[in-house]
Amino acid sequence: MNVVESIERKRDGHALSPDEIRSLIAGFTADAIPDYQMAALLMAIVWRGLDADELAAWTDAMLHSGDVLDFSHVAAPKVDKHSTGGVGDKVSIPLVPMVAACGVAVPMISGRGLGHTGGTLDKLETIPGFRTALDPAEFTRLLERTGLVLAGQSETLVPADRRIYALRDVTGTVPSIPLIASSIMSKKLAEGLDALVLDVKVGSGAFMRDIARSRELATTMVGIGAAHGTAVTALITDMSQPLGRAVGNANEIAESLEVLRGGGPADLVEITYQLGIEMLLAAGVATDPDTAQRMLERVVADGSAFAKFEEVVIAQGGDPAVLHDPSLLPSAPEEAVVAAPRDGVVQRCDALYLGVAAVRLGAGRATKEERIDPGVGFTVCAKVGDTVSAGDPLVRIRWREPGRLAEALPLVEHAITIGDGPAFPPPLVHEKVT
Amino acid sequence: MNVVESIERKRDGHALSPDEIRSLIAGFTADAIPDYQMAALLMAIVWRGLDADELAAWTDAMLHSGDVLDFSHVAAPKVDKHSTGGVGDKVSIPLVPMVAACGVAVPMISGRGLGHTGGTLDKLETIPGFRTALDPAEFTRLLERTGLVLAGQSETLVPADRRIYALRDVTGTVPSIPLIASSIMSKKLAEGLDALVLDVKVGSGAFMRDIARSRELATTMVGIGAAHGTAVTALITDMSQPLGRAVGNANEIAESLEVLRGGGPADLVEITYQLGIEMLLAAGVATDPDTAQRMLERVVADGSAFAKFEEVVIAQGGDPAVLHDPSLLPSAPEEAVVAAPRDGVVQRCDALYLGVAAVRLGAGRATKEERIDPGVGFTVCAKVGDTVSAGDPLVRIRWREPGRLAEALPLVEHAITIGDGPAFPPPLVHEKVT
Repeated sequence: MNVVESIERKRDGHALSPDEIRSLIAGFTADAIPDYQMAALLMAIVWRGLDADELAAWTDAMLHSGDVLDFSHVAAPKVDKHSTGGVGDKVSIPLVPMVAACGVAVPMISGRGLGHTGGTLDKLETIPGFRTALDPAEFTRLLERTGLVLAGQSETLVPADRRIYALRDVTGTVPSIPLIASSIMSKKLAEGLDALVLDVKVGSGAFMRDIARSRELATTMVGIGAAHGTAVTALITDMSQPLGRAVGNANEIAESLEVLRGGGPADLVEITYQLGIEMLLAAGVATDPDTAQRMLERVVADGSAFAKFEEVVIAQGGDPAVLHDPSLLPSAPEEAVVAAPRDGVVQRCDALYLGVAAVRLGAGRATKEERIDPGVGFTVCAKVGDTVSAGDPLVRIRWREPGRLAEALPLVEHAITIGDGPAFPPPLVHEKVT
Repeated sequence: MNVVESIERKRDGHALSPDEIRSLIAGFTADAIPDYQMAALLMAIVWRGLDADELAAWTDAMLHSGDVLDFSHVAAPKVDKHSTGGVGDKVSIPLVPMVAACGVAVPMISGRGLGHTGGTLDKLETIPGFRTALDPAEFTRLLERTGLVLAGQSETLVPADRRIYALRDVTGTVPSIPLIASSIMSKKLAEGLDALVLDVKVGSGAFMRDIARSRELATTMVGIGAAHGTAVTALITDMSQPLGRAVGNANEIAESLEVLRGGGPADLVEITYQLGIEMLLAAGVATDPDTAQRMLERVVADGSAFAKFEEVVIAQGGDPAVLHDPSLLPSAPEEAVVAAPRDGVVQRCDALYLGVAAVRLGAGRATKEERIDPGVGFTVCAKVGDTVSAGDPLVRIRWREPGRLAEALPLVEHAITIGDGPAFPPPLVHEKVT
């Protein structure tokens, strides 16, 4: 195979053949194709895109670049959920114990936060002792035993994606819908799922800022699933303001526990149930949304969802005491309050500003090498449509280092706009794509 | 400077600043920017282009990546000519001694052939002993003494171009007008010229197949010259059929000597004089085309152009005996003749087919590492518009290896089409761009 000819074909807007794509991915993973040729190809893909056949082949080649998990011996339907990432998006944490408690096996592989979007692994690891680095044998054993595993990506799963992503990160080739879609889908399809539910975020705090691009990403991922023979449903959900009140890591675990106990902020609860309904329908354990909703309400009300989470925490080495007393979770020592400068109605509560502010505070990382501070973060006290009086708290900030607080504070202050007229939050779920 | 941000800006269609461009070129040349980032940037430039300000900065940064020649102490006007490359294009060899004999200093730096287009250096080196690898001190000394030097590019001249070109060659980023134009112009402007005349070829045997792309390339290079303060004139000339009769290396030297002695094929003579007129006008040694034409005719008629070439050959270590007896030049031992299969008029004599056939025969190289065979090549006996009878020779082939002849022969046979109606060769000079 002549790599230059493949690059030229893509550069000139032609489609690559499945064999060509397999050779390119395998060659790059095996160090037979140098970084500079893959970099040029990736930029040509950002330019020209990949059609449905190319996408199917690209995803399949990535998926088979390493181990592919096989849970066909697990009787329960295997369904996972993936979010494209947002601010305050802790949905997976209450969601998957609820779904698992309804009899669905969830082999969830999550990522760490990078930039202004948080990561499920970072949040889970604020539970003392909780291990997310599991080898495939332990992962399988835990799934068989508890029907739910919450782990990080092992080195042997989809190595091509790790290498290609690292190259995209330093060559300006991240924002390409086919490359984003195939990266996500290759990792999820390597989990050996029966079905997948996607939460595609849209808004200032999401990777996709407008509905058209979100819809394109959702449709592309659903198409990849169809080509692979895996049922994929996507909800396009709002990320113009943070989800729930907690933005950080340990505080997001605490808020997740509220949802598992039947409480929690209305927007977070609503999204959690909507995604749960899709997962139960996809798994075939419920045949209609109303039944699915009632099943989820029941496992929360009877404590079995909470018990499922506790079982997983114990199985993965975590200290269950924090689940019963969230005040044991890490918390930064100092509090600062950003107060409303005037009476009025919150017109804007910007997820991007709050997400970037959280990184500055230490709750996220700007580069992969940074460590996060588990105990810092925000409580967002007022969201779009809320009426406030001058002096009311808008955001409570848990902080540790004065220099970091000084960096975060102006961003928090500029995140929220108060006006005179009424204001209405956008719908939580914009569209469903199947 | 953040390289990723520069790549992203170009990817998104924005212009890079002059400082940014200087940092990118300098960083890449100094190994501070890795190949994969430059590869992604180059593909983004193929996609988005470079505007006039970017082009000026890019060319200037390349030009200053190594030594810049300074001939300000040479009193004569310094003018060079560059061709974008063609089949049978030996124009430089008779042209520059004629121009030098008229009192213009020509510090010509040429390249080797690659693919179906020949290279002036390969042709000159068929003169036994002729050295084209000159260090800057020798180059300067020879220019001072004879007013004409015919050399290859030294390692220290525009190193950024050598590195960037090597990367473009393996990343599918060659066909970009801004990258082609800045590559050519950075090398020519590093010669310390007062003016430059460009021969931009168009047609099947040229890099640019259509007049619009040729015009764009010519206009882009003239614009770079203007931004640099160097007068640049471009002729867009025909390369749909080979120039002259000889295609090869030593045989092209022999044909060049014919022109220097006042003979040679009409098309080759015509192009040589047209370019010579432009060079004399650009140098200011003639004020109108007729005067320039008469000056060129005189230095051919009185033998001073031939004597100038002999002086250069001796100065650069070549054996002058071959100039007086071209039968001493290398020649392959065998001859094959492709004869006209029927009576008629030549409708097509395809430069690309003959150029590729010449590479197969050994007269050119498909990769930079290959060696050429100086003695193989073609004599094209019939060109577009010529009337032939069945059995007349169309092309005489000088060959050495039967396997190579077998590869070349079908291409030669398919290069020429004979038909019934009259046929007219295209104009030799399509346009002038200033």
